[in-house]
Amino acid sequence: MPADINNTQKSVVLLSGGLDSATVLALAAASGAACYALTFDYGQRHRVELQAARRVAQALAATEHRVVNLDIGWMGGSALTDKSIPIPQTSSIGIPITYVPARNTVFLSIALAWAEVLGATEIYIGANAVDYSGYPDCRPEFIRSFEQLANLATRSGVEGSGFHVYAPLMHLHKHEIIRTGLRLGVDYALTVSCYAPDAAGKACGHCDACRLRAQGFSEAEVVDPTIYR
Amino acid sequence: MPADINNTQKSVVLLSGGLDSATVLALAAASGAACYALTFDYGQRHRVELQAARRVAQALAATEHRVVNLDIGWMGGSALTDKSIPIPQTSSIGIPITYVPARNTVFLSIALAWAEVLGATEIYIGANAVDYSGYPDCRPEFIRSFEQLANLATRSGVEGSGFHVYAPLMHLHKHEIIRTGLRLGVDYALTVSCYAPDAAGKACGHCDACRLRAQGFSEAEVVDPTIYR
Repeated sequence: MPADINNTQKSVVLLSGGLDSATVLALAAASGAACYALTFDYGQRHRVELQAARRVAQALAATEHRVVNLDIGWMGGSALTDKSIPIPQTSSIGIPITYVPARNTVFLSIALAWAEVLGATEIYIGANAVDYSGYPDCRPEFIRSFEQLANLATRSGVEGSGFHVYAPLMHLHKHEIIRTGLRLGVDYALTVSCYAPDAAGKACGHCDACRLRAQGFSEAEVVDPTIYR
Repeated sequence: MPADINNTQKSVVLLSGGLDSATVLALAAASGAACYALTFDYGQRHRVELQAARRVAQALAATEHRVVNLDIGWMGGSALTDKSIPIPQTSSIGIPITYVPARNTVFLSIALAWAEVLGATEIYIGANAVDYSGYPDCRPEFIRSFEQLANLATRSGVEGSGFHVYAPLMHLHKHEIIRTGLRLGVDYALTVSCYAPDAAGKACGHCDACRLRAQGFSEAEVVDPTIYR
């Protein structure tokens, strides 16, 4: 007898096309949920990650995948959206220039809207507070605060079953994330982490995201499938 | 000596083009702040309010006004974005079908992003919990929760002077809002409140928004400048 889609738990999963969010999608799918993957085209210079997101959503059999245009690139304020600011090639102290103002708040807000329309009660995000870049909106207290907000802000929060916001990678090292994904069948060759890839998706090998990724594969003691320029 | 723009308080003001947000913009401007008005084109059927927002921003001398495309209309789930759902002509019990899932959360998130880039520390929203339509994201506890989130989510919240989210109309009756705006020189003829106006901006006179507005002018004992079909 086929599973009744109406009885299947639905989850909205933020999917960037990078290593972390691909792992999160695999975890959400492994829980048995029907996964609705959500990707944003927000004027990021590494737009090649949108193609990676499409490949990952397909490979992990997401029920639906949406790429939403998000008209915030005009604001600037980040090396990821403002091409006049170079991508740093070395680590920095404090919050780096690749921080995009309020990005995860905006992403989660739109995920929340879709979750409410779908009747989904779970929202997944690949935030990580261990091997991370110092972004304020990747901390556990941010995720908890957003979950509280979600349950005040919505019809489902007030009248229905409410929302849970899951950040299952929060306390994992990069090599643990990679091992988890490999166990679940994630093909990391489909993903792009680099902040400044070329048009073919080849990685620079020098930015924060590249260095964290390479270190993760090294510590996981598995072959790094990343293609560098 | 001209005022130093660098020493002027900056505020981001959510501006729909309706009566409430026009009043909020006037209040923010009266506080001496440089006002950055933010309007969303989110697939609302009453898109004529975008023109109203432009008129209001100009009349109240906003320092800058942006109309941001927000790609959420495809989600549906509201009579304001889904033309297959009729706009109710009578009041309902509970949260009405004109509720747009997580709308104020999404709007405030993008306002927060802009505020952080601008160095603005104040965000204004015309939420109202008195003569209101029963939307969960118009309640004081929602505003407080968003302010907490804002100060966890951002560089300015963690390293800087943080954000205040103001909803100065929260506890005012509609007629008090109107009297406040008139004292500050708001021309309500520029505004559109109706959920289902015609292409010229003429109001239906029957939807929730029209009824609250008409009642407000009546109780304020001033002439209602609304043009009805």
